[in-house]
Amino acid sequence: MKLHELAAQTFANIDQGDPNLDILSAAGLDIAAPGDITFLANPKYTPQIHATRASAIFLGETIALDRPDIAILRAKDPYLAYTRALRIFNPDPEIIPSIHPSAIIHETAKIADRVEIMANAVIGANCEIGENVKVFPNATVYENVKIGADSVIHSGVAIRENCRIGARCIIHNNTTIGSDGFGYAKDEQQHWLKIPQVGRVVLEDDVEIGANTAIDCASVGETRIRRGAKIDNLVQIGHSCTIEEDALICSQTGLAGSSVIGKRVILAGQVGIAGHLRVGDDVVITAKSATSHDVEDGKIISGIPAFDNRDWLRSIAAFRRLGEMARTVRDLEKQIAELRRGKE
Amino acid sequence: MKLHELAAQTFANIDQGDPNLDILSAAGLDIAAPGDITFLANPKYTPQIHATRASAIFLGETIALDRPDIAILRAKDPYLAYTRALRIFNPDPEIIPSIHPSAIIHETAKIADRVEIMANAVIGANCEIGENVKVFPNATVYENVKIGADSVIHSGVAIRENCRIGARCIIHNNTTIGSDGFGYAKDEQQHWLKIPQVGRVVLEDDVEIGANTAIDCASVGETRIRRGAKIDNLVQIGHSCTIEEDALICSQTGLAGSSVIGKRVILAGQVGIAGHLRVGDDVVITAKSATSHDVEDGKIISGIPAFDNRDWLRSIAAFRRLGEMARTVRDLEKQIAELRRGKE
Amino acid sequence: MKLHELAAQTFANIDQGDPNLDILSAAGLDIAAPGDITFLANPKYTPQIHATRASAIFLGETIALDRPDIAILRAKDPYLAYTRALRIFNPDPEIIPSIHPSAIIHETAKIADRVEIMANAVIGANCEIGENVKVFPNATVYENVKIGADSVIHSGVAIRENCRIGARCIIHNNTTIGSDGFGYAKDEQQHWLKIPQVGRVVLEDDVEIGANTAIDCASVGETRIRRGAKIDNLVQIGHSCTIEEDALICSQTGLAGSSVIGKRVILAGQVGIAGHLRVGDDVVITAKSATSHDVEDGKIISGIPAFDNRDWLRSIAAFRRLGEMARTVRDLEKQIAELRRGKE
Repeated sequence: MKLHELAAQTFANIDQGDPNLDILSAAGLDIAAPGDITFLANPKYTPQIHATRASAIFLGETIALDRPDIAILRAKDPYLAYTRALRIFNPDPEIIPSIHPSAIIHETAKIADRVEIMANAVIGANCEIGENVKVFPNATVYENVKIGADSVIHSGVAIRENCRIGARCIIHNNTTIGSDGFGYAKDEQQHWLKIPQVGRVVLEDDVEIGANTAIDCASVGETRIRRGAKIDNLVQIGHSCTIEEDALICSQTGLAGSSVIGKRVILAGQVGIAGHLRVGDDVVITAKSATSHDVEDGKIISGIPAFDNRDWLRSIAAFRRLGEMARTVRDLEKQIAELRRGKE
Repeated sequence: MKLHELAAQTFANIDQGDPNLDILSAAGLDIAAPGDITFLANPKYTPQIHATRASAIFLGETIALDRPDIAILRAKDPYLAYTRALRIFNPDPEIIPSIHPSAIIHETAKIADRVEIMANAVIGANCEIGENVKVFPNATVYENVKIGADSVIHSGVAIRENCRIGARCIIHNNTTIGSDGFGYAKDEQQHWLKIPQVGRVVLEDDVEIGANTAIDCASVGETRIRRGAKIDNLVQIGHSCTIEEDALICSQTGLAGSSVIGKRVILAGQVGIAGHLRVGDDVVITAKSATSHDVEDGKIISGIPAFDNRDWLRSIAAFRRLGEMARTVRDLEKQIAELRRGKE
Repeated sequence: MKLHELAAQTFANIDQGDPNLDILSAAGLDIAAPGDITFLANPKYTPQIHATRASAIFLGETIALDRPDIAILRAKDPYLAYTRALRIFNPDPEIIPSIHPSAIIHETAKIADRVEIMANAVIGANCEIGENVKVFPNATVYENVKIGADSVIHSGVAIRENCRIGARCIIHNNTTIGSDGFGYAKDEQQHWLKIPQVGRVVLEDDVEIGANTAIDCASVGETRIRRGAKIDNLVQIGHSCTIEEDALICSQTGLAGSSVIGKRVILAGQVGIAGHLRVGDDVVITAKSATSHDVEDGKIISGIPAFDNRDWLRSIAAFRRLGEMARTVRDLEKQIAELRRGKE
């Protein structure tokens, strides 16, 4: 691809270099080779731009670079422009329309004309599978499930009865969508009596779910993951939760039941969210934190339990010297007792 | 179902309403519609009882409700009564006795007359599968496994060699029962030498295990989950642990090897339990806590490492202002130094 | 096996007992029976050596035992010697060379002469499967994967396109190798734009991965697990990480992207490692801790965020009494204010 074509498709401007330069691929600063375009977004890596072997680079609008041998494309957000370049050079593979003879598809399922259903996949009764859907081997779709167009279901995925998967969703390997929520009532003998879990999970369009994640169905009603939300590996989403649009939930985070995660929220790795609460829009909860209370829109919180991130940074700094502080306080007690005795 | 029948089957008493009222279903306060019975257990939701569209409600024995249009059933535990109603309106689906032609069952396996084994499930040599067992697609049962009557094995589950599954157990999707414990000895070259893991896992009756959970076999002997214990999604149970009767283990909790979790213990989400310890009966460990010591019967503990929950609540309240406290202590040091100088 | 043969094969010396004594098996102190050899490594269990029913015991070089009825083998590391004995008495099962007729193997895959590929396993295009490899039922190997000799792939495992598995690796059930890393750029509409994840995962020789673990492929390049590293259940390894030789990563630990874990590092259970950092060789991070900074070689660290383990022990001891300390500080403030007033 010519440099000027790449610039146009990534909404960048050529600041330096031959518009007809051939760009073959995109790669990070350290591994880029001649023919590649690279990028600088994090100032931490600025020293590497002097050594990169890339033929071109996306830079922000203000950063200077004294490398006449490299083409420079200016972009408002170099990381976004680089992502677009990566997508151009690495398009999703086309589906190969086919149904493997070993796949088991119930006779009542409605399968679009153009799908790719691979070996040993199982599709249950009354399912509806949309155009361009790809189902990898050994995936299991229970009965009465709908999967929207262009979605990809990887091997080992389980989609339980009655769930809905939107268009352009990706579900990675061995993830479970719609297993029973964890609900019991204690009976008179102190045994746990199972509460039926007859709701479903709805994934709206453009949702991506990582590998080995578990999203429980609602007891009654639904667990809903809204348009554009992204969920990483090994995440737990409890029954009846709602994840709002464009929320991002990192690996090993867990949500108990019935909580609502607002739009564009970022839950970093290993976060915990208790049940029946609301995390407001645009909140960030930093890694390994947990909350059992509602969180206002736009807050950044940390800790177990979590509170304002700046206060938390001060608290943890003091915590490192807490043993010493305890000794100091004991010493002050003694000194004051002495001073008081001196006065008597 | 008539109101009086429902009352009898849920051990509740009609306080208000026509005993012959037809109740069609059960649902939560906010989504219940005419024909539904609902409940109030958590006082937080009391305001909703004035607005609910339900036709009937389970209430505790003392709470007043000024809604002559709603039938009232009094129950000692409204949540338990509601659970029973849900179970009446949502019975488990009957099995459809059948073995799908694509299921691979070893010729030496003993399969009860009435079972439902679905597409592409695999059952190994010398297994014994009891009456009314349901094995979903793409589940794998290794050799010499026994599964008791009325148990349900969901898609993607792996049950490793020699394990025992009791009656009326439910194992949700993609869970692994009996994989190798994590045991190595360091050899003379500082490499890890694998310790054989040749024990097994035993699930007693009425155990339910969530999705994507891993329960390791013992190195020698067994890992045992006793009658009525309930384990959520993404939980780790290390080799040779024992989970006592009616214990409840929430999502993403992890146990290292050889620990014992007492009867009716509740381990909330993301808890960590170190190896070779005993958590006493009726203990509650709150979410995100961890212990590396034995815990006495009946304690409620919190924190990393965990200690008495009331003390912990005081500690975390102080922790929020720890930066400020550190400044105060430094200031007190200065003031005392001044006071001492003033005396000299 | 005769005692003298066992001694020779475990590099131990007979200190007491008949060299021709028959030893039939190996087991822990509490469950060992006549005919077994046992061991004492942890001094905590010393009292049990007086009661054990074992016929022989591995002991360290200095510990005394007044049990003339038991054969004593002296070893520098009794735990290692016992591990070797366990391995002698519990050899890995031989493979039964066979390809089950229900396995689906792409015509372009190169399969060694002697392999065991079980029911409903699926092997993709252009794969290469080495000698003595065992693939359990319902495992899925995507296209262009190489698996080295003597490796074992358990049921439900997914190995994604282009990954490399070394020799003598073991991958336990329902683990995912090579699913997409979690990478997105925010576009002008605040939606997440997926960054292509076209790299791969490389497992070198002698790597073992537990059950239900997820190891992401690199966006570009590779995620690499080096020779002899051992990874437990439910672990998250983010894209482009490197795990160095003989590192040990316990259950439910998570690594964000692009971090390097040094040689022989031990990450205990539920640890969190942020992205783009380096944990030095021989570091130990204790359970439930997390770091977002580089860690120097040989350090033992704890806490969230983690710091020197000895300092942390002092801090957590003080934390238990932090509520009380806060009261003391308030009281000291009052007393000093009084003292100052007294001086004026």
